[in-house]
Amino acid sequence: MSESGPLPTTLPPVVDEIAHLAFLLGTWRGGGTGDFPTIDPFSYGEEIVFEHVGDAFLLLSQRSWLAADDAPLHFERGFLRPGADGAVELTLAHPLGLVEVSEGTVSGTELDLASTWIGRTSTGDDVTQLMRRLRVDGDVLSYELDMTTERTPRTRHLQAELRRT
Amino acid sequence: MSESGPLPTTLPPVVDEIAHLAFLLGTWRGGGTGDFPTIDPFSYGEEIVFEHVGDAFLLLSQRSWLAADDAPLHFERGFLRPGADGAVELTLAHPLGLVEVSEGTVSGTELDLASTWIGRTSTGDDVTQLMRRLRVDGDVLSYELDMTTERTPRTRHLQAELRRT
Repeated sequence: MSESGPLPTTLPPVVDEIAHLAFLLGTWRGGGTGDFPTIDPFSYGEEIVFEHVGDAFLLLSQRSWLAADDAPLHFERGFLRPGADGAVELTLAHPLGLVEVSEGTVSGTELDLASTWIGRTSTGDDVTQLMRRLRVDGDVLSYELDMTTERTPRTRHLQAELRRT
Repeated sequence: MSESGPLPTTLPPVVDEIAHLAFLLGTWRGGGTGDFPTIDPFSYGEEIVFEHVGDAFLLLSQRSWLAADDAPLHFERGFLRPGADGAVELTLAHPLGLVEVSEGTVSGTELDLASTWIGRTSTGDDVTQLMRRLRVDGDVLSYELDMTTERTPRTRHLQAELRRT
């Protein structure tokens, strides 16, 4: 059996199924601001990477750090793929004891996603809904994220702007 | 705000909360065999990476490829963290339109995890349970994974052996 692995030295072509999501591909770096009724407002730096492997999905890795002291803040890892009838499906794991399924639409270079399932571990966070809006304009990616928890109604939690590196 | 990012040039220390999981840290490469009543048996190459960022969780990235032609096979991305009372919690995203929460125990250098929650997208796979056993013996990591779907009762799906690189 092969144990050398398929890490390509040149990227495989983007398959047709995700051509309409190819505007996301790349490494994006920037920063944003966060707020929520239960915490103090904060500023953060962030890197988001969208990759593909020649298959009908994108791999998504996000990491952020507190602007104040560069301490690790949040991490998200998952996959974005086309669903039925032009829909987009996101499967995402969080280190807070959360997993997320979100679905929505892509319109041009704008993604609009709402969580349809949030699962948690026994000690996981009490998030109950996540709403994401993300757009790319040239080399700028910006997004807003609204969050609902068991104790707090839907509130704008994050907004950020990143540039393609 | 800082946009330079915290990518450490030296790894931060492993925090006490995950010291008992530190045996997993590193990059593991090897291969295994897969089978299931609904598919033909197959052999695969695999890389599993467990990282940490100085916080109380591990980051997990898995990728595998068909031994026959090095075609990308499967990817998993997620987080492993300590739960309550010595438990271990796994949050994982799959590109098949699946997210997984698994919980279990660590005993020495053996992990035993059973899914407690599997969520799926509208077009996601019909997996209903995943049972994982993973152990490290020196520089060898081996695991078995049993899978249950809506159409197929619990069956050994994967077994593999990897070496620390």
